[in-house]
Amino acid sequence: MAVNPPKLSAPLPVPGFRIGTASCGVKAPELKGQRTDLTIIAADVDCHAAGTFTQNRLRAACVDLGEQAVHEHGGAIRGIVANSGNANAGTGIREAEWAQMMIATAADALGVQPGQMLSASTGVIGTPFPIARIQSGIREAAACASQWQDAAHAIRTTDTFAKWASRRVGDVTITGIAKGSGMIHPNMATMLGFIATDAPLTQAQLQPMLRRAVRQSFNAISVDGDTSTNDTVYLLASGLGLGGAAMQDTSEFETALTGLCIELAQMIVRDGEGVSKFVTIRIEGAASVEDAYQVGRTIAVSPLVKTAFAGSDANWGRIVAAAGNAGIDFEADRISLACDDVMMMENGQLHPEYRDEAGMAVFARPEFSITLNLGMGEAAATVWTGDLTHEYITINAEYRT
Amino acid sequence: MAVNPPKLSAPLPVPGFRIGTASCGVKAPELKGQRTDLTIIAADVDCHAAGTFTQNRLRAACVDLGEQAVHEHGGAIRGIVANSGNANAGTGIREAEWAQMMIATAADALGVQPGQMLSASTGVIGTPFPIARIQSGIREAAACASQWQDAAHAIRTTDTFAKWASRRVGDVTITGIAKGSGMIHPNMATMLGFIATDAPLTQAQLQPMLRRAVRQSFNAISVDGDTSTNDTVYLLASGLGLGGAAMQDTSEFETALTGLCIELAQMIVRDGEGVSKFVTIRIEGAASVEDAYQVGRTIAVSPLVKTAFAGSDANWGRIVAAAGNAGIDFEADRISLACDDVMMMENGQLHPEYRDEAGMAVFARPEFSITLNLGMGEAAATVWTGDLTHEYITINAEYRT
Repeated sequence: MAVNPPKLSAPLPVPGFRIGTASCGVKAPELKGQRTDLTIIAADVDCHAAGTFTQNRLRAACVDLGEQAVHEHGGAIRGIVANSGNANAGTGIREAEWAQMMIATAADALGVQPGQMLSASTGVIGTPFPIARIQSGIREAAACASQWQDAAHAIRTTDTFAKWASRRVGDVTITGIAKGSGMIHPNMATMLGFIATDAPLTQAQLQPMLRRAVRQSFNAISVDGDTSTNDTVYLLASGLGLGGAAMQDTSEFETALTGLCIELAQMIVRDGEGVSKFVTIRIEGAASVEDAYQVGRTIAVSPLVKTAFAGSDANWGRIVAAAGNAGIDFEADRISLACDDVMMMENGQLHPEYRDEAGMAVFARPEFSITLNLGMGEAAATVWTGDLTHEYITINAEYRT
Repeated sequence: MAVNPPKLSAPLPVPGFRIGTASCGVKAPELKGQRTDLTIIAADVDCHAAGTFTQNRLRAACVDLGEQAVHEHGGAIRGIVANSGNANAGTGIREAEWAQMMIATAADALGVQPGQMLSASTGVIGTPFPIARIQSGIREAAACASQWQDAAHAIRTTDTFAKWASRRVGDVTITGIAKGSGMIHPNMATMLGFIATDAPLTQAQLQPMLRRAVRQSFNAISVDGDTSTNDTVYLLASGLGLGGAAMQDTSEFETALTGLCIELAQMIVRDGEGVSKFVTIRIEGAASVEDAYQVGRTIAVSPLVKTAFAGSDANWGRIVAAAGNAGIDFEADRISLACDDVMMMENGQLHPEYRDEAGMAVFARPEFSITLNLGMGEAAATVWTGDLTHEYITINAEYRT
């Protein structure tokens, strides 16, 4: 029941990268051959790499290893190996062993050093990792006979559609894929996102650009307020794009990167577990951008706001009540609230022309915007969220069955 | 679908207090006479009063006025007037006018000063307050021909049963009532709770006792992670209990007060909107009590944990993943997890004897406990929560219809 999933054109290949996928039955041996669940993104040359990682205190071993690899070999990364179906998390010391075996097998199959490979896992937490099946899948995928869209399919868990986006910036290309549907919450690093470019940029240039882009995209969405143990975004740059020339203007690249991340992040919300409404929450008039995000996120995770969306019920009092729980200082008599073009409150007062029918008409739309002005300053932020529906309960009460 | 609602004996009358209720059709005029929605707790003598109030930034005017009254006239409070059906919140400047009219009408009807009356409102936010109907109900209720259990009924909104509790401490009595079912989240002051005693205690004694009791009871529960604009607990003491003698040992009183608050708080969880499971979350081995509460609350609000409860699915990986989101420092290799008598993890490792069938048997129970030991210290805390079900969605998607 994804909300207006975009019709995607084929993703652009990126010079220097090859893609492999395989079906190894990660979740259960009998699923082998039924759906792909293993992905390799192989680089032909040493890449500069940047990453953002989950803020969950109990993060998976593969996240720790990946952060370490970016830190130690961030100018010589040769690829990413990823599986869906099992997060390889919450199982103790064997986690790190399994993650290292996965990396070593991929490095061996691609003829690179283990320190040059990044890995990612997504799926159920707390279940032993089927390393033998995964190793067999890695050897198969290493032939790299697939395309980016195949990789976007193979990293899915409860996602109902595969998510990718591409941009051209002058002569260079950026292509990214992402997965995520539940356990999605701002203030994270993010779910899984892998982005590749042939731009000639160094790690020192890539890392701050990625951080800023993630803040405005993957960190600005929420499906259910839960942050995963495995969230990771990687950005690899092969540097093959300009034939050895340096990039003059990186700001155009950063704008394209940010736009691509927002596009992927919005797809995650549209495909959020059980989501039937796509809602843009715009916070304006905040004292700081951080305040604006904090208020936006607090509204985006409120179960009462999200069930009002689900019920197409313009119970907008819940929106201002949720804003009041953000822990941010503002005054009731300065706030203004509108949903699409319908004003509910102005300077803290009920808008004299507001009629419930007009609000109900907005809330009945599959996509609409909420604009809350705090009247405290000039800062603004936008977050995206969905509703909380019966289908979310069904999906998550029965996830393992 | 409340979970094992307790069979309550009649609440004990408290010397110095009389109760009045009325049906005034707060929510809609045609509901007048169908259910009670107005409550007066009238004191025959000046009472010492303590209060705890919502931490929501946009709190209702009645909460501000009540806090001010406790501050300015806390040794001479003569009663509480409360309505359900409309929160008198989120409507701008008229809120304070309406709250003052409500207080003035009650004070007039009881022959006391407006500054001696406290008020509370609960119900829908952002809807104009039907003050005329409420004033007419107040005049009717002021006859004080009701009992405590009638008041417990009249303050309900979506509550499916009325909540009260009584304690005897030597020769003094404590009786409390509470309401709450949705928009219930720890780190608040609380929903509505009114407690009366004839103990000869001053405001200076009552306020810290109430704060400590609320911390361990109403602030230690969660239904849906949303904090209301109107949450309030009042504690009034008439001082008539010991015939003018002073109370020698207040610790016994505080123990009884805390137990009474926990009993009422647990009733709120049992009656939580859509709740079908009553789950006790015990955090042990924390570095501080605050850390323990923080981890417990984060687990208690996780939609993924709560849907696993709803589905009777022992997907305990979600519990440790949620704990990792609490923002508290701890190490994965020190944690231990048990559900009732079944150990899932010990010192960060999968427990060798754990079998999924044993976990599933626990999660199928209508009541069970989770014990998470962080291995970081000696502090502990207990919070109570329910599951997140289809019925919660139904109730809240259709709340105003």
